[in-house]
Amino acid sequence: MTTTTMDIDSARQVLAAQPFARLVGTEITEFGGGRATLVIPVRDELRQQFGFVHGGVLSYAADNALTFAAGTVLGPNVLTGGFTVTYLRPAAGDRLRAEAVVAGSTRRQAVVNCEIYAESSDAEPVLCAVAQGTTRVVERAL
Amino acid sequence: MTTTTMDIDSARQVLAAQPFARLVGTEITEFGGGRATLVIPVRDELRQQFGFVHGGVLSYAADNALTFAAGTVLGPNVLTGGFTVTYLRPAAGDRLRAEAVVAGSTRRQAVVNCEIYAESSDAEPVLCAVAQGTTRVVERAL
Amino acid sequence: MTTTTMDIDSARQVLAAQPFARLVGTEITEFGGGRATLVIPVRDELRQQFGFVHGGVLSYAADNALTFAAGTVLGPNVLTGGFTVTYLRPAAGDRLRAEAVVAGSTRRQAVVNCEIYAESSDAEPVLCAVAQGTTRVVERAL
Amino acid sequence: MTTTTMDIDSARQVLAAQPFARLVGTEITEFGGGRATLVIPVRDELRQQFGFVHGGVLSYAADNALTFAAGTVLGPNVLTGGFTVTYLRPAAGDRLRAEAVVAGSTRRQAVVNCEIYAESSDAEPVLCAVAQGTTRVVERAL
Repeated sequence: MTTTTMDIDSARQVLAAQPFARLVGTEITEFGGGRATLVIPVRDELRQQFGFVHGGVLSYAADNALTFAAGTVLGPNVLTGGFTVTYLRPAAGDRLRAEAVVAGSTRRQAVVNCEIYAESSDAEPVLCAVAQGTTRVVERAL
Repeated sequence: MTTTTMDIDSARQVLAAQPFARLVGTEITEFGGGRATLVIPVRDELRQQFGFVHGGVLSYAADNALTFAAGTVLGPNVLTGGFTVTYLRPAAGDRLRAEAVVAGSTRRQAVVNCEIYAESSDAEPVLCAVAQGTTRVVERAL
Repeated sequence: MTTTTMDIDSARQVLAAQPFARLVGTEITEFGGGRATLVIPVRDELRQQFGFVHGGVLSYAADNALTFAAGTVLGPNVLTGGFTVTYLRPAAGDRLRAEAVVAGSTRRQAVVNCEIYAESSDAEPVLCAVAQGTTRVVERAL
Repeated sequence: MTTTTMDIDSARQVLAAQPFARLVGTEITEFGGGRATLVIPVRDELRQQFGFVHGGVLSYAADNALTFAAGTVLGPNVLTGGFTVTYLRPAAGDRLRAEAVVAGSTRRQAVVNCEIYAESSDAEPVLCAVAQGTTRVVERAL
């Protein structure tokens, strides 16, 4: 598989092959050109004790979204080295949307910014968390 | 509830009140004196496409563990502002253990370090990820 | 001093009042609307042992630029809680340019992204580092 | 130069070869066994507008200290990929001390924790900032 052949259908297959992404219920709605967007329908199992979406779901979403965004510029054989997430507001609403955009890249690594919004059908999206991570090419797939 | 009354039983109740922690299957095994340890039995639903534990599970574990550790010095009304996680090795094994230790604190915030190990009954624990986060006191519970 | 009165001249005065910014030789070229840009002429004293600009100069530039950008939306009484910086390439060239843009904010805090470029008169700017930090309003100036 | 030959004298030479470390006035007082400590005498040129040490000096100190600590386990040909710093308290006092300790490492990278204290002869050291960064082996020196 070469770098250039990965499209949103391939990305969807990768996501479907991740049992934890299925457990959370993650969908991919955008993939390409340095960008990837994941959507997570909010259900009770994703909440913390005050009824908001658990911070760990937001951090998972950041990890997953920024890795996909890096894959659009680095190809499929990538490994995320780590990331930082900052929580701005509690996440309520019907679904999360994690938008990841490559901020800069070399042939071997990409730095990706990610914004996580809580969305409802009757209100403006609310920016709940912002993240930044680094993803690198691995010589051989794991 | 005052700061001093929170013990491991209270912490266990907080964790049990987090639906997402239950979905993941998190247990708390240490709580007090600037430290908290969470254990997550590894099952297939927590994996990514190569069979290792999903990075998002590790980042969730860091978020949850460091917030509990901060709670031992700041009291129960805390909010984690964000954290950084770095992945060192793919996580295999039977269970994850996230050990969080307060690195420094003021009356209003704590910086917490967290180490995440993959463990099996027949091998040494493997350090898979390291994290550092900041948690602050909230004046009113949300 | 109210939030709305701070303009680029005020920002320049703040920068001039920071002895370390003067030691480095930092100038501010943009301030307003969630954005701040700092420029640092490169001279030998700012380098590391291989002749590139020292990573510590880049991290200082990120710290300073993102605090100013936050100040454009939060007002002058702000304190940066911390930041993450990722180095993409060694920094050569005649000057550094640190462009900080607010990614999201509440009344009390702002998350800011920052890109640091190395520039020369005869070449395209090179993105050398990317950062993300959090700045909060302080009730009283320190 | 092999990994095992680097000692504190070599480290001191590396530091002396960094013009920016000389501009700041950094000294190295500990190097070995996964640890490195840097000391920076505080002088007026290192301050911000309120008389405290500039946050950018603390972030520079973290960058430099954690890279040396990583060098004790990875050898001299290393490159710091980035780091996170969190500020806990304003830094006053006579000197900064940045203590970096390797938290975990593989053959190719190390994650390092760093604590930065402000010290005076007549008071207890004050923890002012905490950092965590990642350093990797480079195949060839730059």
